[in-house]
Amino acid sequence: MQRILSTDLAAHEKQTVTIAGWVHRRRLLKAVAFLIVRDAAGLSQVVVTEPGVRAQIEELPEETVVEVTATVVANAAAPAGVELVAPTVRRISGAVAVPLPFEVHRPTLSATMATQLDHAALALRHPSRATALRVAAAATAGFRDALERRRFVEIHTPKIVGTATESGANVFELDYFGRPAYLAQSPQFYKQLMVGVFERVYEVGPVFRAEPHDTARHLAQYTSLDAELGFIGDHRDVMAVLTEVVAGMTAAVAERTGVAVPAVPAEIPAVHFAEALRIAGAPADEPDLAPAHERALGEWALREHGSEFVFVTGYPMAKRPFYTHPQPSDPRWSNSFDLLFRGLELVTGGQRLHRYEDYLAVVPDPGALGGYLDGFRYGMPPHGGFAIGLERFVARLTGAANVREVTAFPRDLHRVVP
Amino acid sequence: MQRILSTDLAAHEKQTVTIAGWVHRRRLLKAVAFLIVRDAAGLSQVVVTEPGVRAQIEELPEETVVEVTATVVANAAAPAGVELVAPTVRRISGAVAVPLPFEVHRPTLSATMATQLDHAALALRHPSRATALRVAAAATAGFRDALERRRFVEIHTPKIVGTATESGANVFELDYFGRPAYLAQSPQFYKQLMVGVFERVYEVGPVFRAEPHDTARHLAQYTSLDAELGFIGDHRDVMAVLTEVVAGMTAAVAERTGVAVPAVPAEIPAVHFAEALRIAGAPADEPDLAPAHERALGEWALREHGSEFVFVTGYPMAKRPFYTHPQPSDPRWSNSFDLLFRGLELVTGGQRLHRYEDYLAVVPDPGALGGYLDGFRYGMPPHGGFAIGLERFVARLTGAANVREVTAFPRDLHRVVP
Repeated sequence: MQRILSTDLAAHEKQTVTIAGWVHRRRLLKAVAFLIVRDAAGLSQVVVTEPGVRAQIEELPEETVVEVTATVVANAAAPAGVELVAPTVRRISGAVAVPLPFEVHRPTLSATMATQLDHAALALRHPSRATALRVAAAATAGFRDALERRRFVEIHTPKIVGTATESGANVFELDYFGRPAYLAQSPQFYKQLMVGVFERVYEVGPVFRAEPHDTARHLAQYTSLDAELGFIGDHRDVMAVLTEVVAGMTAAVAERTGVAVPAVPAEIPAVHFAEALRIAGAPADEPDLAPAHERALGEWALREHGSEFVFVTGYPMAKRPFYTHPQPSDPRWSNSFDLLFRGLELVTGGQRLHRYEDYLAVVPDPGALGGYLDGFRYGMPPHGGFAIGLERFVARLTGAANVREVTAFPRDLHRVVP
Repeated sequence: MQRILSTDLAAHEKQTVTIAGWVHRRRLLKAVAFLIVRDAAGLSQVVVTEPGVRAQIEELPEETVVEVTATVVANAAAPAGVELVAPTVRRISGAVAVPLPFEVHRPTLSATMATQLDHAALALRHPSRATALRVAAAATAGFRDALERRRFVEIHTPKIVGTATESGANVFELDYFGRPAYLAQSPQFYKQLMVGVFERVYEVGPVFRAEPHDTARHLAQYTSLDAELGFIGDHRDVMAVLTEVVAGMTAAVAERTGVAVPAVPAEIPAVHFAEALRIAGAPADEPDLAPAHERALGEWALREHGSEFVFVTGYPMAKRPFYTHPQPSDPRWSNSFDLLFRGLELVTGGQRLHRYEDYLAVVPDPGALGGYLDGFRYGMPPHGGFAIGLERFVARLTGAANVREVTAFPRDLHRVVP
């Protein structure tokens, strides 16, 4: 018999159907027992009154995989307004882990984060953890859709690189056929070179940071949503595309998961770094924005513009990577930006240098960058781009306190399994 | 003035427009000069008769980035039936590399593969190389679309793993905060565990193989298109999904790139391994199919079924990984398959073990697999999946002799830059 999903039961009222899934919970009352079956779409309630079937489900611990054939009847109190009666139940497999290290059917996971991570294959079955991963999948789909509609081409770039290019610090070293190589900290250089091929490119892929920080927001591997586009006037063209992309991402999250998302203004307010310091009440010679300053800017944007998002532009050149394009009118500042969401940095981007001679002026040892600079010897248009850390984006959207809550199998200073 | 693309010129006949792109080629004839400008969409022909402009373009080597403002006129002999006359030309940047290491405007790239790879940022601008990457992007989009329509959920899994799980051989080792870790050879175990969460999952991501083979088909990093689905009857359910996915991939390639693609039958012919040996004229005790056998099977499928695709099922258990599900009727064989395209292996897949006790029976040291087996202690449904190597798929579709021709910045035994 064709299996149907929990969310399709209501369309089969009074019919005998087969569902399959995991034993989410059993409630063994005196006169009746309830078997709650979980599938990828949701929950189904099975009513058991027949003593033989009751005896059977008493031996089916939570997370056992079962197939249930039963009749659909209306019940306003049950999930989706229907429940299943007069069932036959077949055990398909497991669960072998009895008792479970923690209960998945509780509204919130009570296990510590460490215990959840030790038993990730179980913890991720909890609706709160699974929903966060669905939000990540939806945000990623929205990112791609928004860019594909604007003729960006998807690329795949090397994650193993010959030189620790971007910063040199916090890079993982590996043994590459007997010689040292490194895990890429970003696809930055490759996406810039690919602007020379497709003008507009994007990549969704892992990046690696050997950051010795044990915090709620650092991961040794995360998913970077990267975009880069050529033939721009300056960084404001990048900000316009990013605004459309973030709107596409939040719309996809709302549509696919039902999770509440913030409104993305058609034009997100933008303030120059110098002005941002003034708004935040910071000294005019501060070289960067502290978290308290970012929070103050978030409050200002909400108060003055009704926006949960705000761009800060023009960060001091000294604080941005070497490939950042200076502000033509005053080269102390840069054509770069951060996008803040509720007072927290969400996205970083900007215009890049595009002339070979400009790179030579700022890179002390061009040879150390391998073939990267070489690519700029063939004409490159003015270009820029941005990178969105998927896990931080999802954590901020869902209000998760720890980025590990929204990552399937996180990697950090202490954890490389499972 | 708003820049327009080469492919939009025909809609602007008799108007003055601005295009921008790379100097693809200059033809300096006696009475007239032609400037061919390349953008991401194609080529535009600019006709230069004014001596001052001619003198200007004589100083603009190929690959210089230029902006041209001119009038669109019809000319049946020009690209897309139009050309640009009475231009003003502005140099935007580069090219500094003069002379170029090879010419991009020739119909075929004459440079050796090594030279192309040394200068990848230039070689990828050649239409043949760029088209192959567009085919890869289209195939990837088709893969995702086909799966999303069948309620698969996208996942992102660790590329750094604590144990060299799948085979132990050909794995890259890295220094992970002072202790050894490894680059993942596939998302196999993670996608299986995620079947326990979403039932149906997929991932597009890099995988790493430290294979000491210097061949036209081995890469140290390639893009793996992985899918896994639960609640299957057996491997034939996986083959049915794969057939739809390959049809979706080829359709997307045809639609987005115009590249000719093979017809994918609604039902791809399938032969059991034992029968495949007989068809290929191989001894009945051969443990695997040699390349000549696969070619013979490709010819047989075309001759007998009019299909360029053929499934071989039931490979000997001894030749498949430990997580492979045996054929219930005869456990010497397996519920696995290869999909051959024109006599070459294109995709590998099959049903996996799903019971914890079955894993314990075949894994000598469960502890060495870290948390992987642990996940099977929580009930898992019958499941299976497949993995498509994107670069090999594209090479076979485009007829490229070397997988490096269809990879932006390949990594191999000898190459880790650019």
